[in-house]
Amino acid sequence: MSGADVTPSCPAPVRRHAKVQLAHGGGGRLMRELIEELFLPRLASGRPSRRHDSAVVELGAERIAFTTDSYVVHPIFFPGGDIGSLSVFGTVNDLAMAGAEPRFLSAGFILEEGFPLDALERVAESMRAAADAAGVALITGDTKVVDRGKADGLFVNTAGIGLVPAGVDIAPDRVRPGDAVILSGDVGRHGIAILSVREGLEFAVPIESDCAPLSASVRALVRDGVELHCLRDLTRGGLASALNEIALDGAVGITIDEELVPVLEPVAGACELLGLDPLYVANEGRFVAIVPESDVERALRALRTEPVSQGAVIVGRVADRERGRVVATNRIGGTRLLDLLSGEQLPRIC
Amino acid sequence: MSGADVTPSCPAPVRRHAKVQLAHGGGGRLMRELIEELFLPRLASGRPSRRHDSAVVELGAERIAFTTDSYVVHPIFFPGGDIGSLSVFGTVNDLAMAGAEPRFLSAGFILEEGFPLDALERVAESMRAAADAAGVALITGDTKVVDRGKADGLFVNTAGIGLVPAGVDIAPDRVRPGDAVILSGDVGRHGIAILSVREGLEFAVPIESDCAPLSASVRALVRDGVELHCLRDLTRGGLASALNEIALDGAVGITIDEELVPVLEPVAGACELLGLDPLYVANEGRFVAIVPESDVERALRALRTEPVSQGAVIVGRVADRERGRVVATNRIGGTRLLDLLSGEQLPRIC
Repeated sequence: MSGADVTPSCPAPVRRHAKVQLAHGGGGRLMRELIEELFLPRLASGRPSRRHDSAVVELGAERIAFTTDSYVVHPIFFPGGDIGSLSVFGTVNDLAMAGAEPRFLSAGFILEEGFPLDALERVAESMRAAADAAGVALITGDTKVVDRGKADGLFVNTAGIGLVPAGVDIAPDRVRPGDAVILSGDVGRHGIAILSVREGLEFAVPIESDCAPLSASVRALVRDGVELHCLRDLTRGGLASALNEIALDGAVGITIDEELVPVLEPVAGACELLGLDPLYVANEGRFVAIVPESDVERALRALRTEPVSQGAVIVGRVADRERGRVVATNRIGGTRLLDLLSGEQLPRIC
Repeated sequence: MSGADVTPSCPAPVRRHAKVQLAHGGGGRLMRELIEELFLPRLASGRPSRRHDSAVVELGAERIAFTTDSYVVHPIFFPGGDIGSLSVFGTVNDLAMAGAEPRFLSAGFILEEGFPLDALERVAESMRAAADAAGVALITGDTKVVDRGKADGLFVNTAGIGLVPAGVDIAPDRVRPGDAVILSGDVGRHGIAILSVREGLEFAVPIESDCAPLSASVRALVRDGVELHCLRDLTRGGLASALNEIALDGAVGITIDEELVPVLEPVAGACELLGLDPLYVANEGRFVAIVPESDVERALRALRTEPVSQGAVIVGRVADRERGRVVATNRIGGTRLLDLLSGEQLPRIC
């Protein structure tokens, strides 16, 4: 492995590990540290960094959103989707979370020597169908091949460009105490769908990934003039991690009522069986919208016009106490802290 | 491996292989077939596809170039560069080849569990230095981690956005018989630099990669009003493969005089030793410009104002015979066909 004999060119920052851990990609505390301590100080180009799913910048006369994600999901085909649809919807959703209209995607393929070409065809077809469903065009791409044993079949990267409509400004620092936390639907299906294949679990009712584009739901919110303080899709680390990111980046507290978070019965059952907390399980077609109290009804009406978000419900509030923390209350009046995970609950979920 | 037990969902096209070969990523005939027969029919969204290093599209009031590349180079550190600078310059150069001003880059990291964090720091610092040198900003990123043995240390994807100045229109279908083929400098250094580390070769004079940004050279050509029929950077497959792509996409013949192609003495020596043809060896800071005869002197003057292209020379002509083919003439008046390679000369060169 090429990096093993490398001498550091600068003093190493204080950190707990000398080598990459699985949890560095898990959406929890270690990934946040990696980004904040290693990548941002070295890569970011001086501009005030507004942590977000997409970067929003001026490009000539336009304001655009730009984002990228690599997809290493294992297995690459799963109930309700595959690495192709996931790689399109995931990037479309990151653009949508900035309030942007997704327009163009790139696709970069890293193939392992020996990967079946018919599987690659299926993935390409799935990407095209997903792009058509989301109203974006795949316009540029790249293919690399690595020798057998140096990758795991297929990794896909997509980057996406969207146009941000005039007047739209969405970011965690706009979140205010008293705002409502709206969740677009039931949680945990993507993670459990992946796990069911990976672990060979069979459920009475097959659980399908929620993998879907969220741009139409965001368009409905913008169209109806809802004041959007923050949007965040729930991917790695699930609802709990997304809310933690918002609480940390926006320097607010967030309280949710655990009983209000929709979890389908088979998903809840699988989580119990597997010892997983559905609030931390990955989704690929769910998001939270943080809106001022005055706009809650309008937001719910707008979301419910789109099938993917017709199950939208209020699940919590933004508070001015316990800043940077997320607390869940339950039926019997107890509370628990929903912390950022330190370890890795489910590797290679996306 | 997850795709192995997959059944095809549609009739497989006629092709010579059922599985991915190393040469599918090599920049030669097999990669061209993969793109033309598998990806383009499935992914491209109906728009007339102008095959190019970048896609050029309208975005609101602007015309932008958009491109992506994944980098799997092995080893990740090599004389004259590393996977970080390569991933920035490679994508900057693809934008420049569309005549665009590179503006924004994304960075997607796929890390293997156990990869040293100090090596990752070096790569991030190298990316930032390269971005500063090329005048682009890295504004968005993503990190994924795969379990040990499922990747090879570090893969990097970058995507890039550039603004295309009004009046600039560069593509192979503008190439005309009689046009001159200008090469921006000596060829073969990147490939030999990589090989020297990989194979533990020691040369009297160390050979450094030519890895460099080409945007300033293109800016000089545009500034001086040179009519640019086509630009193409020489990466995988080298000069011969780039010219083949232009000959095929532009439906023209190309003849070069092999004696006019600059190859540094140690590179020529290494190629002889290793049995490689320098015309096929990869570069990461070289390009060809196809310009009408009337603009040759102006083009050469413009190129020679930039250090990276001060060695620019005419190496050949576009012809209206032998369409789709590239022919090299040599000192003694002989000719040879520079065909697209079928196999893989050097895997994982970028």
